[in-house]
Amino acid sequence: MRPVDLIRKKRDGGEHTSAEISALVEAYTRGDVPDYQMSAWMMAALLRGLSGSETTALTEAMLRSGQVMDLCALPGVKVDKHSTGGVGDKTSLILAPVVAAGGLLVPMISGRGLGHTGGTLDKLEAIPNFNVNLSPEKFRRVLKECGCSIIGPTAEIAPADKKMYALRDVTATVESPSLICASIMSKKLAEGIEALVLDVKTGSGAFMKRQEDAEHLARMMVETGERLGKRTVALITDMDQPLGRMVGNSLEVLECVEILRGERRATSEDLRELSLELSAWIFCLGQRAASVGEGRLLAEEMVASGKALAKFRDMIRLQGGDTGVLDQTSRLASAKFKSEFKAATAGFITSVQCEQVGLASLVLGGGRSKKDDIIDPLVGLELLKKIGDPVALGESIASIHYNDAAKLPEAQRLLLEAYRIESKPSTEKRVLVKKVIGG
Amino acid sequence: MRPVDLIRKKRDGGEHTSAEISALVEAYTRGDVPDYQMSAWMMAALLRGLSGSETTALTEAMLRSGQVMDLCALPGVKVDKHSTGGVGDKTSLILAPVVAAGGLLVPMISGRGLGHTGGTLDKLEAIPNFNVNLSPEKFRRVLKECGCSIIGPTAEIAPADKKMYALRDVTATVESPSLICASIMSKKLAEGIEALVLDVKTGSGAFMKRQEDAEHLARMMVETGERLGKRTVALITDMDQPLGRMVGNSLEVLECVEILRGERRATSEDLRELSLELSAWIFCLGQRAASVGEGRLLAEEMVASGKALAKFRDMIRLQGGDTGVLDQTSRLASAKFKSEFKAATAGFITSVQCEQVGLASLVLGGGRSKKDDIIDPLVGLELLKKIGDPVALGESIASIHYNDAAKLPEAQRLLLEAYRIESKPSTEKRVLVKKVIGG
Repeated sequence: MRPVDLIRKKRDGGEHTSAEISALVEAYTRGDVPDYQMSAWMMAALLRGLSGSETTALTEAMLRSGQVMDLCALPGVKVDKHSTGGVGDKTSLILAPVVAAGGLLVPMISGRGLGHTGGTLDKLEAIPNFNVNLSPEKFRRVLKECGCSIIGPTAEIAPADKKMYALRDVTATVESPSLICASIMSKKLAEGIEALVLDVKTGSGAFMKRQEDAEHLARMMVETGERLGKRTVALITDMDQPLGRMVGNSLEVLECVEILRGERRATSEDLRELSLELSAWIFCLGQRAASVGEGRLLAEEMVASGKALAKFRDMIRLQGGDTGVLDQTSRLASAKFKSEFKAATAGFITSVQCEQVGLASLVLGGGRSKKDDIIDPLVGLELLKKIGDPVALGESIASIHYNDAAKLPEAQRLLLEAYRIESKPSTEKRVLVKKVIGG
Repeated sequence: MRPVDLIRKKRDGGEHTSAEISALVEAYTRGDVPDYQMSAWMMAALLRGLSGSETTALTEAMLRSGQVMDLCALPGVKVDKHSTGGVGDKTSLILAPVVAAGGLLVPMISGRGLGHTGGTLDKLEAIPNFNVNLSPEKFRRVLKECGCSIIGPTAEIAPADKKMYALRDVTATVESPSLICASIMSKKLAEGIEALVLDVKTGSGAFMKRQEDAEHLARMMVETGERLGKRTVALITDMDQPLGRMVGNSLEVLECVEILRGERRATSEDLRELSLELSAWIFCLGQRAASVGEGRLLAEEMVASGKALAKFRDMIRLQGGDTGVLDQTSRLASAKFKSEFKAATAGFITSVQCEQVGLASLVLGGGRSKKDDIIDPLVGLELLKKIGDPVALGESIASIHYNDAAKLPEAQRLLLEAYRIESKPSTEKRVLVKKVIGG
């Protein structure tokens, strides 16, 4: 079949065979199918949808377009977590050491932040000298020595996804659940893992604003993972307010260190809870625990015993970073200035436009509007109030950490837009983990 | 708005402003919008549809991407006809001289055949030395001298359409009524005409197999023409069997000469009827006749008086062709061999798979599978029976004119597939002009 026939088939709502999809992806990766045919096919796929088996075939074809990480030589069950992204979402930095401390291997390939959402690699790079660009050999060595390693995407992993993602970005074909699923799953499965926990976020700061869309994507990813022989579970989690207390790269590392040290703060509790709950599911899928409850106890123990913090220390050391930040958090550089965002009225915080909070950090320099923007790891926000909290007139809702005073007013304006204060608290009960799919 | 935002808008079913559409087409023509964005937009437009005003804006933007033929210096009303294409459809060769003889100007830019359908330029080139590649100056001179000229598309006419059509062809976005409408109408209106008659074919040999699709396209083209200030009418006409007696380039010229000479044959009557009816509508729209009936009388008179044949002679002469073919049709070259396709059973012809007949001529060498195939103008078919005609066992249904004996069996096989012979004639009444839209 010629590419134009495949486009026509999808345009008319037909279902592709696995052979058709793999032929298309292979030819596209080789450069034999030009961008203009792939973009037409992806638009047809977005508007007509892909079935479960088409999505699986696409995932597999994209996975096979590159190398699958060879981790056979490493004993132990390889597991990972993927989050669809949000504001203040820093669970990877807690989960990876917790899970490694619990005896599983976490070969994590992460991404960078774009738009209002942050990225794990940017956060790690706030640790002086931390290197996210390891060779496959070095990655394996770190994994072997400490059980977890977090690096950036390599050229060998799913090259089809790299080409397709760049094309989707400029042809309005990003928002297809099947294309999102194949993009995420092809990269994660290329890590050579056996089990995967997905954190699919929903709410004002998430990619999927509506819970039904998040659930649809989650089901598709779980189905795809299972069809490809991987134990997969998805948690649908709340992103109607930033996760935890900090937004901004250096600040987020600080918050994770606090949690790994066993320090507790009310505004960080949701982050702690989600990180440990995701770890619990991984322990369960990775067969280190017989149940999620047992997994949760193991995760708590890894923090309480200091074993998780020790793993984080090992990983930082092995990836070249300054482990001194764990002992003396002041070694994490901080922004030059700090300003308070204060309540303009007394009452209760009833909602947060989470995307605006992410953008406030972005405009300070903590994020990227375009892929090649350079970020300032030091700036960001410390959120002192969460939804439901009472505030007095003039009380600080957030501390703004900034280096460039010219950027402050825009951040202030975005925060003012983001926070809603009403005379009575909302009666709606907030739930962090809304649903578990699969498992 | 960035191109990606325009794609997203159409993807989500939004309606573009005229400014958005003209910006997109202009940027694409300049090369500032790459093919991969245009193909994604066209797929979204195909699946979401374009409104009447979007289609008009697209037509106008494509028309304005190039030059509009400047025929101001020529006195007289400029008119044209366009057909959506079929098998044996050669009305242009009759209509252009008839209409010119009646006092209107016909600046006709035609196309070539592709697939099972023929093209006017290929037919004219069966006349020795006929030149379809005239400069705009020469085109104007021919028009001034004889009132009609038929040439191929020039680089100056609707360059956006050339780029878009080539892209549609390889991205399965040909079949959008709005894109078809804009493609046809932008080119036709670039001829600088004041009125246009559209022959929208439906049936087994037409692009639009279903009459409702043909009517939908026809309404869209009439609406677009009227919105752009041109008097426009569309006739929905039958393409359930080849039009007239001949299929193949040289053979089709021969049939047209016979009709212009006033010769009548039962198997050519439908071609004569449609050519004169389309001419009648043009006379009416071009205000040479107060009614279609009056236009029809004028058209008949132009043939009967020999004036149309004289115009055809003038046009051939002015475009460098051998006018001797009009006096001695044997000067039209013919194929080396002739073979009969005979009835395998006695009965009545109840249906013809018209596309198969077109393909039979194509496989003999009379058509093109790909754009740059070279055609053999001499081969083709003479159809001796039409739907409803009785046939005896072994009686000839068609004469096959061929040059290469190796191609004969495939043509025979296609004809066998095409013709259905049953013991009783169909009771269905055949109508040549099924509907008139606009006017």
